[in-house]
Amino acid sequence: MQNFDYQTPTRLIFGKGVIEKLPSVMSQFGKKILLTYGGGSIKKIGLYQKVHELLKGYDIVELSDIQPNPKYDPSVLDGVRLCKEHKVDVILAVGGGSVLDCSKAIAAGACYDGDPWDLISYKVKAQAALPIVDIITLAATGSEYDTFGVISRTETNDKIGYGDRLLYPVCSFLDPTYTFTVNKKQTAAGIADAMNHVMEQYFTEDTTLLNDGFCESMLRSLMVNGRKCLENPEDYTARAEMMLACTYGCNGILALGNSPSGWPCHGIEHALSAYYDITHGWGLAIITPRWMKHILNEHTLPRFVKYGINVFGIDASLDQWEIANKAIEETYKFFESIGIPMHLREVGIDESRVGEMAHHIAVNEGLDQAYAPLTEQDITEIITASL
Amino acid sequence: MQNFDYQTPTRLIFGKGVIEKLPSVMSQFGKKILLTYGGGSIKKIGLYQKVHELLKGYDIVELSDIQPNPKYDPSVLDGVRLCKEHKVDVILAVGGGSVLDCSKAIAAGACYDGDPWDLISYKVKAQAALPIVDIITLAATGSEYDTFGVISRTETNDKIGYGDRLLYPVCSFLDPTYTFTVNKKQTAAGIADAMNHVMEQYFTEDTTLLNDGFCESMLRSLMVNGRKCLENPEDYTARAEMMLACTYGCNGILALGNSPSGWPCHGIEHALSAYYDITHGWGLAIITPRWMKHILNEHTLPRFVKYGINVFGIDASLDQWEIANKAIEETYKFFESIGIPMHLREVGIDESRVGEMAHHIAVNEGLDQAYAPLTEQDITEIITASL
Repeated sequence: MQNFDYQTPTRLIFGKGVIEKLPSVMSQFGKKILLTYGGGSIKKIGLYQKVHELLKGYDIVELSDIQPNPKYDPSVLDGVRLCKEHKVDVILAVGGGSVLDCSKAIAAGACYDGDPWDLISYKVKAQAALPIVDIITLAATGSEYDTFGVISRTETNDKIGYGDRLLYPVCSFLDPTYTFTVNKKQTAAGIADAMNHVMEQYFTEDTTLLNDGFCESMLRSLMVNGRKCLENPEDYTARAEMMLACTYGCNGILALGNSPSGWPCHGIEHALSAYYDITHGWGLAIITPRWMKHILNEHTLPRFVKYGINVFGIDASLDQWEIANKAIEETYKFFESIGIPMHLREVGIDESRVGEMAHHIAVNEGLDQAYAPLTEQDITEIITASL
Repeated sequence: MQNFDYQTPTRLIFGKGVIEKLPSVMSQFGKKILLTYGGGSIKKIGLYQKVHELLKGYDIVELSDIQPNPKYDPSVLDGVRLCKEHKVDVILAVGGGSVLDCSKAIAAGACYDGDPWDLISYKVKAQAALPIVDIITLAATGSEYDTFGVISRTETNDKIGYGDRLLYPVCSFLDPTYTFTVNKKQTAAGIADAMNHVMEQYFTEDTTLLNDGFCESMLRSLMVNGRKCLENPEDYTARAEMMLACTYGCNGILALGNSPSGWPCHGIEHALSAYYDITHGWGLAIITPRWMKHILNEHTLPRFVKYGINVFGIDASLDQWEIANKAIEETYKFFESIGIPMHLREVGIDESRVGEMAHHIAVNEGLDQAYAPLTEQDITEIITASL
């Protein structure tokens, strides 16, 4: 077991109707709020109106139109400018992971005099950040319970995951009913994203019975409840359990003491969505089984066997290689069964820029240090197999 | 799924040698420290000396001799007096759960003008508390990652669990090597205590696949690693995994969204150890299988079946009642196999005060609201079956 230093101070307020606690939470942070959100979906479900109603008497500045794979320019830059101009006290992010990720970059940038990219690219360590409260409307990224954000910079094809302890939300509101209107495509992408977060941490060295059990429970729960959410979008219990499972994805609690895994599928997918702006969860679902196939060998075999038996219930008496291959096949089939197009061509990616992307990944993502180390050639082969 | 409001802000610094970070952590809180500990064990393992060496330049006041089932008088009262006299800034608790529990009561009492019992008995809500840092030397209670403490008041036979959000330790140091010298009796008591924390949360309504999976992983991990710790007390990996598993016991993360369970075995055991000062983990181990047998019925059957299959690997094709009864038997046999005396008579408790204790429990512990509600008669029968 490896040493670790872990803390997740975020307060989770979870369940139907918990929004009523918003005024008492916001009252701790001052009167000037930057309200961040994406498209119009929070208006359609009445959440935008509800927030304004609950926060009468506050001075609210708005930053809207934050896109999936949120952009440095204009979203982060505009948000930072608004915070500085209006001397904002606290950011209230309402939406999915992209809105919250963008808000984290704004929170740090607002307390820094230079170019916010210095912080995102780790050239400069953030010294302070505005407090962030969020209201989550999409179960997927786990951003509501971690320090991380992922920001894209179009002109350089960069999609960078950055994190800082200062960026834990102080409070996350999680009302599963807000996810009732999430469509099938986004629901499936959320399931795949959350499942991949678990897999990225499960496939590594030095794991424990405890962490393995947590991860396997997460995967089983996400598959069972994910399917129920797709079948009946207003199944409260399924939406609630999926929402809770997603929160654990990225704050490290599933892998305390494990060896670093390198998060290889995220490393690869970040380039795909930076170059082509595809849906993150779809990209992960397409890459994952091909990555698994690529790294399956004598050394990794026992992990795949455990995964197959405990997650998919594959008969433990079968030949080990058969279990492992079946497990990879089941992974593929599950993603396919929830409606995810399982080839990159179906989302508009062809072979033309594979070499360029593989090079970018090899240079920037440190995957030579991953659980199963990947060279530029390996990355090329994984992406090619995913076409 | 029930609504919840959850937060565990404690920083966990985990692993061999992490004590070196103590000065940088303590430097955040001021120069006056109350150092709390129990008997001489922290001196025997050199930890007492190490702490003094690392904290040269600090002004350290000491409170020693904190007993298992820590006492209001003298320990809490002495600690509060020392904090007030010396204007202590921060408490450093070094030891097991009892030292830390006692330190939590002191931390709240030090910031209150009246009798600290007002806070412990919830007559008055604490408004402030001193920050607490701890160094854990015994894996068991999970006090290092929760708000709770249990304090005994001898003259009234009270053993009260109290909690307040103010009482999360700000930082817990967890070095598994400090548990190498914990003897077989205390190691077994720790295993039973931690396992019972999980069972108290597992046996309830409205559970999720996710929480059930977490709980089942905890139990499997505690049994496997607990045995290894007993066989080879210096097995780092086993001690480490057990230590990590114990941290999750009481902060609620295993039961987010579950119905309240009432923690019935703790309710009963608190009276046993208040009246007879027995080892808490032993008392829990003795009570648990008798409580299980008592509450097994048509309604609770499916929970016991799930428990039997997923925790003990009992053949799922057997008759449901057979699985449930076998699961209870396996629970008993496990505790017995790790050296716990499985009858109250063996720890000095006979039938003479059973009625008195059952009445005390029925009046004070609210077990008529438990998952399987218990009357005074039920409690009498469970204790009698445990004699």
